[in-house]
Amino acid sequence: MQKAGLIHPSNPGCYYYLPATVRSMEKLTRIIDQEMQGIGGQKLDMPSLCSAELWKTSERWDLMGKELLRLKDRHGGDYCLAPTHEEAVTTLVAHQMNVSYKQLPLLLYQITRKFRDEPKPKFGLLRGREFYMKDMYSFDVSEEAAYQTYESVCEAYTRLFSRLGLRCVQVQADTGNIGGKLSHEFQLPADIGEDRLLLCGNCSFSANVETMSSDRTDCPQCKTGTLVESKGIEVGHTFYLGKKYSHVFNAAFTNAQNKPSVAEMGCYGLGVTRILAAAIEVMSTEEGIRWPGLLAPYQVCVLPPKKGSKVDEAAVVAEELVHTLGETFSGLRGEVVLDDRTQTTIGKRLKDANRLGYPYVIVVGQGALEETPRFEVICQQTGETMFLSRDGLFDLLGRVETV
Amino acid sequence: MQKAGLIHPSNPGCYYYLPATVRSMEKLTRIIDQEMQGIGGQKLDMPSLCSAELWKTSERWDLMGKELLRLKDRHGGDYCLAPTHEEAVTTLVAHQMNVSYKQLPLLLYQITRKFRDEPKPKFGLLRGREFYMKDMYSFDVSEEAAYQTYESVCEAYTRLFSRLGLRCVQVQADTGNIGGKLSHEFQLPADIGEDRLLLCGNCSFSANVETMSSDRTDCPQCKTGTLVESKGIEVGHTFYLGKKYSHVFNAAFTNAQNKPSVAEMGCYGLGVTRILAAAIEVMSTEEGIRWPGLLAPYQVCVLPPKKGSKVDEAAVVAEELVHTLGETFSGLRGEVVLDDRTQTTIGKRLKDANRLGYPYVIVVGQGALEETPRFEVICQQTGETMFLSRDGLFDLLGRVETV
Repeated sequence: MQKAGLIHPSNPGCYYYLPATVRSMEKLTRIIDQEMQGIGGQKLDMPSLCSAELWKTSERWDLMGKELLRLKDRHGGDYCLAPTHEEAVTTLVAHQMNVSYKQLPLLLYQITRKFRDEPKPKFGLLRGREFYMKDMYSFDVSEEAAYQTYESVCEAYTRLFSRLGLRCVQVQADTGNIGGKLSHEFQLPADIGEDRLLLCGNCSFSANVETMSSDRTDCPQCKTGTLVESKGIEVGHTFYLGKKYSHVFNAAFTNAQNKPSVAEMGCYGLGVTRILAAAIEVMSTEEGIRWPGLLAPYQVCVLPPKKGSKVDEAAVVAEELVHTLGETFSGLRGEVVLDDRTQTTIGKRLKDANRLGYPYVIVVGQGALEETPRFEVICQQTGETMFLSRDGLFDLLGRVETV
Repeated sequence: MQKAGLIHPSNPGCYYYLPATVRSMEKLTRIIDQEMQGIGGQKLDMPSLCSAELWKTSERWDLMGKELLRLKDRHGGDYCLAPTHEEAVTTLVAHQMNVSYKQLPLLLYQITRKFRDEPKPKFGLLRGREFYMKDMYSFDVSEEAAYQTYESVCEAYTRLFSRLGLRCVQVQADTGNIGGKLSHEFQLPADIGEDRLLLCGNCSFSANVETMSSDRTDCPQCKTGTLVESKGIEVGHTFYLGKKYSHVFNAAFTNAQNKPSVAEMGCYGLGVTRILAAAIEVMSTEEGIRWPGLLAPYQVCVLPPKKGSKVDEAAVVAEELVHTLGETFSGLRGEVVLDDRTQTTIGKRLKDANRLGYPYVIVVGQGALEETPRFEVICQQTGETMFLSRDGLFDLLGRVETV
């Protein structure tokens, strides 16, 4: 991403996200919002500065060790920069008065910048010290209800990756220092991945090597398949927490018998910057960056002819095309770029467009000036080149899915 | 905002933004994006963790004193949590190769969380330690061009506040520790404001008391008007910086003579959370929260009759209305709330709706069941109550501006 001018390094593990990356991140945020709100999630925003007191209550102030970035304010008070918000959200819910069982499940999430003092930040946005994460927390009346919520979040995650066109496997995982009873990771199989997975060739079984003996080759689920090792990039993680945090912070509701009852919790993370980086890692080619269609910073790049060429009057057609596409299809508003560096050859600009991975590149040349205008269209995701009439072009681009 | 359940206190000067507030903040963000991109701004995202080295280069590491939150990473490296990004953005631009004068002005902005260790955080979101700010930085070829850019940003700010329906004055200001040659504040006149302004009753002259003698009463601009003191909440600040930062970090471009030349800079802040809090402060009434129309978390609240009342079959009409409004007007999708607490009286729910400040409240009662249905509509911004036919209602709500 750095080579393509999408990010620029700052301190170790910290990056500037340049404008195209911000556009892509905003699209990913919208998709995550849709999926989280689709299962009843409510978006909130919690402070990055968390008091030591809160983290001492959960005993994670010591447990987290050097991963936690710590600081003092001007009055000498101890704080950390939150890498996750179990403590914060649980105490928030504990402070709500008169929560009735009828109001549960409560699903609260945020998409914010998180901090983790990685010993060795690497792979650009894949393992940074400052990154964007979607973290959701659920509060339920019972273990059974909490499992249902857990299931619905996992389904939303699966839908999300499917919409992005990314192959993702849900693997059994260790609960780590978050704690709890049940946990899954969402992994994108990739050579650059730091996690080792065991996938069954026969059934859907998959697990992180950490959770089982790594030399096991027979599938514990279907009993007939063979386990094959693969590397993966962790892009999501779900935890069924039970009452671990709700008990400590007393996040309770009034049950059907009108008695106070401690909520059953789950927490669910998605690495937002990491999904973007992993998707690019998995999809890109030698020629350049490739994006999940929905996340491309711009959908279409239009190339007018080189200035001084014998068809340079087609430049007007190109300009008009950019304008009309945005007017005709609301989804393409702001999504069509005119590469008007017309002192540069079409070939050179095509190469640049290929490198940046616009899903659709339209060359407006000789054909555009003919009585029945023809446009050369390159679909970069398939590598296909087509010659389309104006109607054909509008028909194709009208079907482009945007978010 | 705290009483209305819009925010919840965390550490001193830090707040949870609850779901309605997040919706409002996202709308404000979209409006700011429109205005900044309208004048050529490109959105990026810079790290919160800034190395001490960068801040020592500009000499602000010492100058900022206790307002700067400082921390060490696991390797003992010194960092601060950035309250502003002049150093970061200037070094970013300095690292771009071959920037030509033809590419300027360059306007880069972000809307991110900022940190400032206020000695006495107060007034909720008005003076916090963690807050959202829009910060834009401009790079120009000459002082003249930089003044033009400065002017266009001020105009965009004025448009922004006008779209929000907020009276805002642009006052001459001190340049403080940001430095530079010219500076304006954008102030919302309000009794709770911490700034003292002098406004001319005759012409457009206005200044912060800090910049002139506070007992001066004659206008230095029109010479005839009398200056009147008013309190204000600072919601925006613009600075013409000259080469203060670009010189130190060597942010240069290639000029028309093909020689390297140091850029002229400006920086421009908008307090995003503060605009929201100030707007609510200025507009709200004894009865409840009032929002700038564009920023209301939801535009419409529909009240079906109380369960068991003789017109409770109108509940179906209310549900259908919520659905149809969202289907008919794309701007109202997700903006219409059904208050289906039908065990509660209309009166009690009307009071709640009034307190939360939905711009439009629709009571679906007896009238909705008549042959020519009638709906009671309360416009909370004007206090007006109307009885409208279905067509009249759709005509009214179809004209609601959303973002």
